[in-house]
Amino acid sequence: MTVTLGVDLGGTKIQVVAITNRRVVGEARHLTPQTDAQAVVDEIIAAAREAAGTGTVKAVGVGTPGSITSEGHVSMAANVPGFMHDVPLGPSVSKAFDGVPVTVDNDVRAASMGEFHRGAGRPFRDLLGVFVGTGVGGGVIIDGKLRRGRGNAGEIGHTVVRDGGRECTCGRRGCLEAYAGRMSIERAARRKQADGAQTVLFDVMKRKGRDRVTSSVIAEALDRGDELTRSLIDQAVDALGIAIANAQNILDVEAVIVGGGLGDRLGPPFVRRVAEAMRPRLRVPEHEPAVLTTQLGDLSGAVGAAVIAGG
Amino acid sequence: MTVTLGVDLGGTKIQVVAITNRRVVGEARHLTPQTDAQAVVDEIIAAAREAAGTGTVKAVGVGTPGSITSEGHVSMAANVPGFMHDVPLGPSVSKAFDGVPVTVDNDVRAASMGEFHRGAGRPFRDLLGVFVGTGVGGGVIIDGKLRRGRGNAGEIGHTVVRDGGRECTCGRRGCLEAYAGRMSIERAARRKQADGAQTVLFDVMKRKGRDRVTSSVIAEALDRGDELTRSLIDQAVDALGIAIANAQNILDVEAVIVGGGLGDRLGPPFVRRVAEAMRPRLRVPEHEPAVLTTQLGDLSGAVGAAVIAGG
Repeated sequence: MTVTLGVDLGGTKIQVVAITNRRVVGEARHLTPQTDAQAVVDEIIAAAREAAGTGTVKAVGVGTPGSITSEGHVSMAANVPGFMHDVPLGPSVSKAFDGVPVTVDNDVRAASMGEFHRGAGRPFRDLLGVFVGTGVGGGVIIDGKLRRGRGNAGEIGHTVVRDGGRECTCGRRGCLEAYAGRMSIERAARRKQADGAQTVLFDVMKRKGRDRVTSSVIAEALDRGDELTRSLIDQAVDALGIAIANAQNILDVEAVIVGGGLGDRLGPPFVRRVAEAMRPRLRVPEHEPAVLTTQLGDLSGAVGAAVIAGG
Repeated sequence: MTVTLGVDLGGTKIQVVAITNRRVVGEARHLTPQTDAQAVVDEIIAAAREAAGTGTVKAVGVGTPGSITSEGHVSMAANVPGFMHDVPLGPSVSKAFDGVPVTVDNDVRAASMGEFHRGAGRPFRDLLGVFVGTGVGGGVIIDGKLRRGRGNAGEIGHTVVRDGGRECTCGRRGCLEAYAGRMSIERAARRKQADGAQTVLFDVMKRKGRDRVTSSVIAEALDRGDELTRSLIDQAVDALGIAIANAQNILDVEAVIVGGGLGDRLGPPFVRRVAEAMRPRLRVPEHEPAVLTTQLGDLSGAVGAAVIAGG
């Protein structure tokens, strides 16, 4: 059996799928080593071998954060140890699998392709994917084709929703990510708590044994009626509504898919609220796009990377 | 000689060009009748005959505001007398020219196509056209293809630049058009004057014999150092910078063309200021798009309509 592998490289975990005849026939999930680039590359190869099992690997697709060269080198990926500087990721993976073709693409664009071809986006000709995790990334597929631009298309997370507003991880102000990204939500909660606001958010975090406010920590704080968390999520919903409506007014796509850790964890009720926040800002509200959750969940990225590699 | 005609229908004037071998070989400009739809259609046909001269018309393209059906009917064009209700514009023009094919498309999308194929956009593979006139419209061309979406793509004028901000002509708040459209600028100036602000804007308007604040009225008030006008144009520049950066962060196009009455009249200094306002909001400022004035000026729309018709 021949398989195409899809790898989703993240700061926390490495997810791999093996695909044959458009079906996932193998899976592996490893933690991302927190040491150096060589350890990360070795772990990707180990996870890939595990997912491939006895299959013959014919191609590998990798979705990664950061900047990517046409030769499959990666840099500027702040979340992945050692990946701020140039890492020859594509060539290293290819070498480990007897020189098979390896395509390296942006992780969020890969996830959008995964949902478009194998997930919630299948009924549609075009798609805006919005992935709300540590940060907020986007992928635009128009008439079936992934929009790469000159390498930087899809950055909906850094469109301005409130000019001069909350500071963003990118150093500018008022971006969507400054309101909807998990890291920004955590920072805002810490600031509010330091200013005297009451919240169970960090108690939940500690009780869950986490050192950061994950999507599941946010979900539990919401379930427990935490006011501060509710107000921060209200702002995130509003920011997503503005940014998605702005993109839709320009692109007029058939569907918007809201995924990522927060989108997947908070699920349909959250995504419905985002659609409600979008609607009044649409130029043609009677022609709104379908706004959907992902179908592949946290496999979107790995499946999409395999799709891009021809799997 | 056979010619392809391009018609740009506006609330004030009807501009027609005749094109042979990609060159403009005839032109006509008529005032738009302020009576009813039949008079407007008759005037379009008269202007078209004048531009065609002795040429044999093989196709006609029309750019129009409003909603357009696939059969070339137009409605919801508030600026054109009688065009709020269904007008069979395409069939009427076709009938007048012995049944030649007539394509009807959005006026701003036509103007973007004109600049892309025959104007400032020629060196590029993709383009965002932003036309700043009475309102603000946009056109998106990606990999050489005009983006229509489900009929409503390109509405950059109604992307939000300041949520909850200035009231827009569309009834919502904080759209780009609410800050950069000529009509909104005029309304804001009247409100400020009613509140006691000093301005020469309306004196200039009267002296020029105009009943509204045209682009040339704004230009003269700026030249005379009018503070209110300067401040309103500063806000327009800032709003354009935000909206264009937001679109660019998603699309990553090679070029942005800023045209329309205000863009053409205020020219390169204005467009340079828009580029400066865009730059700090770009995700990848070191990879900014070319930001250019139009080359065809107020012929962009008519030329583009002819291009869409195959001329």
